[in-house]
Amino acid sequence: MATELKGLTKRSENYSQWYNELVVKADLAEQAPVRGCMVIKPYGYAIWEKMHEVLDRKFKETGHQNAYFPLLIPKSYLSREAEHVEGFAKECAVVTHYRLKNAEDGSGVIVDPAAKLEEELIIRPTSETIIWSTYKNWIKSYRDLPILCNQWANVMRWEMRPRLFLRTAEFLWQEGHTAHATREEAEAEAKKMQTVYADFAEKWMALPVIKGVKSETERFAGALDTYTIESMTQDGKALQCGTSHFLGQNFAKAFDVQFVDKDNKLDYVWATSWGVSTRLMGALIMAHSDDNGLVLPPKLAPIQVVIVPIYKSDEDLAAINERVAGIVENLQAKGISVKYDNAENKRPGFKFADYEIKGVPVRIVLGMRDLQNGTLEVMRRDTLEKETLPLEGIEDRVVNLLDEIQENIYQKALAYRNERMVEVDTYDDFKTQIENGRFVLAHWDGTAETEAKIKEETKATIRCLPLGMEEVPGKCVYTGKPSARRVLFARSY
Amino acid sequence: MATELKGLTKRSENYSQWYNELVVKADLAEQAPVRGCMVIKPYGYAIWEKMHEVLDRKFKETGHQNAYFPLLIPKSYLSREAEHVEGFAKECAVVTHYRLKNAEDGSGVIVDPAAKLEEELIIRPTSETIIWSTYKNWIKSYRDLPILCNQWANVMRWEMRPRLFLRTAEFLWQEGHTAHATREEAEAEAKKMQTVYADFAEKWMALPVIKGVKSETERFAGALDTYTIESMTQDGKALQCGTSHFLGQNFAKAFDVQFVDKDNKLDYVWATSWGVSTRLMGALIMAHSDDNGLVLPPKLAPIQVVIVPIYKSDEDLAAINERVAGIVENLQAKGISVKYDNAENKRPGFKFADYEIKGVPVRIVLGMRDLQNGTLEVMRRDTLEKETLPLEGIEDRVVNLLDEIQENIYQKALAYRNERMVEVDTYDDFKTQIENGRFVLAHWDGTAETEAKIKEETKATIRCLPLGMEEVPGKCVYTGKPSARRVLFARSY
Repeated sequence: MATELKGLTKRSENYSQWYNELVVKADLAEQAPVRGCMVIKPYGYAIWEKMHEVLDRKFKETGHQNAYFPLLIPKSYLSREAEHVEGFAKECAVVTHYRLKNAEDGSGVIVDPAAKLEEELIIRPTSETIIWSTYKNWIKSYRDLPILCNQWANVMRWEMRPRLFLRTAEFLWQEGHTAHATREEAEAEAKKMQTVYADFAEKWMALPVIKGVKSETERFAGALDTYTIESMTQDGKALQCGTSHFLGQNFAKAFDVQFVDKDNKLDYVWATSWGVSTRLMGALIMAHSDDNGLVLPPKLAPIQVVIVPIYKSDEDLAAINERVAGIVENLQAKGISVKYDNAENKRPGFKFADYEIKGVPVRIVLGMRDLQNGTLEVMRRDTLEKETLPLEGIEDRVVNLLDEIQENIYQKALAYRNERMVEVDTYDDFKTQIENGRFVLAHWDGTAETEAKIKEETKATIRCLPLGMEEVPGKCVYTGKPSARRVLFARSY
Repeated sequence: MATELKGLTKRSENYSQWYNELVVKADLAEQAPVRGCMVIKPYGYAIWEKMHEVLDRKFKETGHQNAYFPLLIPKSYLSREAEHVEGFAKECAVVTHYRLKNAEDGSGVIVDPAAKLEEELIIRPTSETIIWSTYKNWIKSYRDLPILCNQWANVMRWEMRPRLFLRTAEFLWQEGHTAHATREEAEAEAKKMQTVYADFAEKWMALPVIKGVKSETERFAGALDTYTIESMTQDGKALQCGTSHFLGQNFAKAFDVQFVDKDNKLDYVWATSWGVSTRLMGALIMAHSDDNGLVLPPKLAPIQVVIVPIYKSDEDLAAINERVAGIVENLQAKGISVKYDNAENKRPGFKFADYEIKGVPVRIVLGMRDLQNGTLEVMRRDTLEKETLPLEGIEDRVVNLLDEIQENIYQKALAYRNERMVEVDTYDDFKTQIENGRFVLAHWDGTAETEAKIKEETKATIRCLPLGMEEVPGKCVYTGKPSARRVLFARSY
């Protein structure tokens, strides 16, 4: 039975509040003193570090290199690409001065009016403009292509309704920016990175995602196509987990980046950009967790196994310590991250609750009777099932159990999502299903007007035109006009 | 013989210009469009990534965890610690607005005057203030201590005389911020991290450093003691490579962070902070490189071994490719990073020059005659010596060679530094030696006045009071007043 945790709201009562409380109670992050910004606490950061590590390896395996571009972007750069400026030159942090001075009345420091910048600088909301202004100097000939760069960085978008991990003014992310000699190569790159993201979500986060293409309305500002992966939260909303953009020659034209091709002709360079952010933390928390706290996929859990001793005397503890030392060593030798928590200033019940809310996948408890019987108690966090197992050979059992948990939470999330994805053919049914938190596959006439009206009336947006789905024509659920295929509608985070 | 590189200034002609050119020619970094900021290019970033990886492991081995704190700091926070504000609330980037809007005349975007922040925000020049305002909520009791956090982040100081890696407006760094229950524990932590830094510099960067304590004048703003490691550049200047600060209770008092100790008494928390930055890249470049380009320590080289084929026909190349495949595989199996450059659009001479300026420690060249003789040509970058070796067993020889190079460049740098470190007892001699680019160990009367006068007259500052040196009393080289010990003077970057 699960340890009762005082104060964690149930998902069925208030899903949104459950999430907000869980992020804080599981020690993942908290609000910073600066509005909309967050402090990522060590336990939360350890999960992000694991994500970073795996993704970084995948990027390198697909031929990318890391680099670093400046935080600040001259204001005028944003205006260079017409659509981009509409999308990004709005809610952003503006640096206007470069010096403070002591106030004459001794009340503290004030901005020095003499230190006003000639041109204001923007804290990057995304780096296409600064990077393409740099690529201009790197690219002369087809021999300089492709450029396959990625950067890990912080970015800032002045969000009006911030939410820890899901939507914060400052967030951490990676942004890939590639330059290619041909349209085909750039499109293939954008699709490839969507696949890398989907693979990461499914295999590591245990998170089923729908791969698709964004409608024109939902596209990245400045892209010709935006490829997306969309997951479902437990309250039936869509969460955009990662996007990969085919940018055509838009940024090359905006920053005049031309190259001499093999036939000695000048042409503009083709581009992609792609990114995932600390928003993935939000997706991960929402995917598997329950009313008892976090449920983490073993592959991303900072602590995969925790061992808690139950003892009365110092002699008991010494005996348990001795036995556990070997188990810890064997588990570590198998590459498992294990914590033995024999801290004396906390009671076992407190420890159980703490590791449960933190989502440690496997908990092992060892008491004196176990020591005598050669057994121990193993609990898996995903099902909260306990079993007593022989101490002998426990390491192999734990390895298998971690794999089982990884697979189980993926299958559970997949079944949940599939149950809640429906095809709909009337607008009444559409509204009902959206209200019930369903992913709705419906026909759409392809116009931005219809898309906007549906959004206004139901708060549902087109999440994507799913890839790999048979494209059967039909009639638009809203206007009755011809539709080439069903698209995915949902409310979203 | 070294390949001649057009355009790289010799160190003896103009050391400063040599450095500036080398950073660019070796593809490490370049100036960004924003004044004082840099773009770290993939090859430069790959070196920084290796540094990051090793340091991060060392921090974790010494019990630290990573976390992330916000980029922006409310202006008023800087004023909370009186000395800190003097040191940092000067040349910093100030965010005053959070929105842009389209100019009415269609000329682009302008700052929206309606979106003025109530309190200006500062881009962090260092994070003590924002972190201690956060720690206030994390610390109630001695049970919450110690807190051992580190963050990898970008910071910004509006430098008036920027220089790639050495002094840039934005730079990357790590900053550790720890909180302790006792003075002793905090002091031990500050010293421990100085040792971690020194060990990293010497064992990984092959860079000899002097460990010492800063004089009051040179101390971090807000610290009671600053521990430093100082290296010598080839033009005889000092370069501060890393600092670790014992902050006493200053920040705890400024942000009212108290804890209940074991005896149930309230006390302020003791603090340290410590950091190294992309400035280490500057130290590394300056330490070992020569008129032919970069010389990298094998342990931090992104490419440790490059193999270049010499061939005339496609058949030749195919035969060489086949033989090299096995060597590459064997080297990789030994954990060596190896690049086989058989690109056909570049000539061997171009490749040689390129890898030489990039400082690849070992170059292997393989032609058809080598293939017939079972030999290959090996060049080590540090001495530029070439030898012809049997192909059989080359992998073990390369492993040893990399170790030899690592040791050799350390010993060379150590000998260079030791030759240029002198004890001086008269002010005339002091001035001569400083002028000649020497590290000068001289007596000093301990006053800030004398320190300031010496700096004004000679541009030399007290780099540190070296640790582990016998403290023999004497007379101040400037005033003749009593001195407790010799201290280290030098000009510096």
